[in-house]
Amino acid sequence: MTYCVGLRMDNGLVFMSDTRTNAGVDDIAQVRKMTSWQVDGDRVITLLSAGNLATTQAVVSLLDERGKAPDDRSPSILEAPSMFQVATIIGETLREVVKKYSAEGQEAESTFSASLIVGGQIKGGDPRLFLIYPAGNFIEANDDSPFFQIGETKYGRPILVRAFDPAMSFEDAVKLLLVSFDSTIRANLAVDLPLDLQVYRANDFAITEQQRIACGDSYYASISDGWGDALRIAFQSLPDFTFSR
Amino acid sequence: MTYCVGLRMDNGLVFMSDTRTNAGVDDIAQVRKMTSWQVDGDRVITLLSAGNLATTQAVVSLLDERGKAPDDRSPSILEAPSMFQVATIIGETLREVVKKYSAEGQEAESTFSASLIVGGQIKGGDPRLFLIYPAGNFIEANDDSPFFQIGETKYGRPILVRAFDPAMSFEDAVKLLLVSFDSTIRANLAVDLPLDLQVYRANDFAITEQQRIACGDSYYASISDGWGDALRIAFQSLPDFTFSR
Repeated sequence: MTYCVGLRMDNGLVFMSDTRTNAGVDDIAQVRKMTSWQVDGDRVITLLSAGNLATTQAVVSLLDERGKAPDDRSPSILEAPSMFQVATIIGETLREVVKKYSAEGQEAESTFSASLIVGGQIKGGDPRLFLIYPAGNFIEANDDSPFFQIGETKYGRPILVRAFDPAMSFEDAVKLLLVSFDSTIRANLAVDLPLDLQVYRANDFAITEQQRIACGDSYYASISDGWGDALRIAFQSLPDFTFSR
Repeated sequence: MTYCVGLRMDNGLVFMSDTRTNAGVDDIAQVRKMTSWQVDGDRVITLLSAGNLATTQAVVSLLDERGKAPDDRSPSILEAPSMFQVATIIGETLREVVKKYSAEGQEAESTFSASLIVGGQIKGGDPRLFLIYPAGNFIEANDDSPFFQIGETKYGRPILVRAFDPAMSFEDAVKLLLVSFDSTIRANLAVDLPLDLQVYRANDFAITEQQRIACGDSYYASISDGWGDALRIAFQSLPDFTFSR
């Protein structure tokens, strides 16, 4: 499993992904699920991936190769004129890979399946965030739905639904993501540290902040330990139930 | 979908279940998923059910009929000498029903599948809580795993993991369950009010408290509204993230 989140904020985009990949509980490994392409002053594109690792790595490699061979017939995400075109190209690449390795039938197709979050900004446009389905189609984040999750999404969703505000600071957004990831990591062995974090401030046209939050990170530990106490205090602040209502 | 929780507390058992059942988003209905059998002064047995409704209703009806016909060859949960025997009988009844309606093959079996939580107390024993799988086998709650969830379990799990304490009061346990149910109801259309609540105090040998929390219940609304604010305050109480670490 995997857990990745992309936030569409008023001032840019924030991405976080875990690094655990597994084929069974006795076959785990650490893999980066966040990939970025940057053309300084022109565009930044960031991709988060969940699902079959062979599929998502093939998608990234194909996008990479096509970016380096601009004479190729396939369009490059480094030359596409808009984020919509970028999402279209990535969606088509995903569909192509899933189709290539899928045997006939529903079951096999889901085995090679993957979901992607793509966000970024191209000069002349605003920062945009997309969720790409295995079929290659996609949806875009908007004011009503300002974030996307892929992978093991449920444990970490309630806190995002309750507390995410696109107007919050990047620092608060990172803190919120860490709470959401901590809830997930505690519940599901297939999601784990280290976490990759990236912040893109609108109109920077270069990655603004990027870091890896390692196992044993002291700030992560303070969030993970502190959230239990904070939740219990929050719980106690609610009005008490009585049976004699 | 469905959401049901059974808590094994130091002083008894607490159960909560939603009432939404659906076969597609355009075919929803309200169904009670909590069933109790009581022999005053001797035993209380409570069953929560998730999964195929025809299966869970058949299980309850079979258990009912066998309880009323003690000469039947099948053992009755009203005469079983221990909660372990009760769980065994209910597990066998579940397996029998799933098997009867299942066509050949894995896919069909899962269609008729169901999971159950069974708890109660029989004179001479302690209150006990079990989770019964579709195969009829089951596990028992213990000090390390003092609660069970069935149905749509993920959204409401983090708060239970963080805040549940078997030593808390029944009132606090109900409040905690309402927070867990609220998180789930906000995320999944297939879980909804009204909620059925039951409390069993150890050695009462009769249902201690039972009520339905209806749509529009003012206490539920105060929890649902208040939890968002409480979470935001809890979130703000955590140490701030800075990029310059």
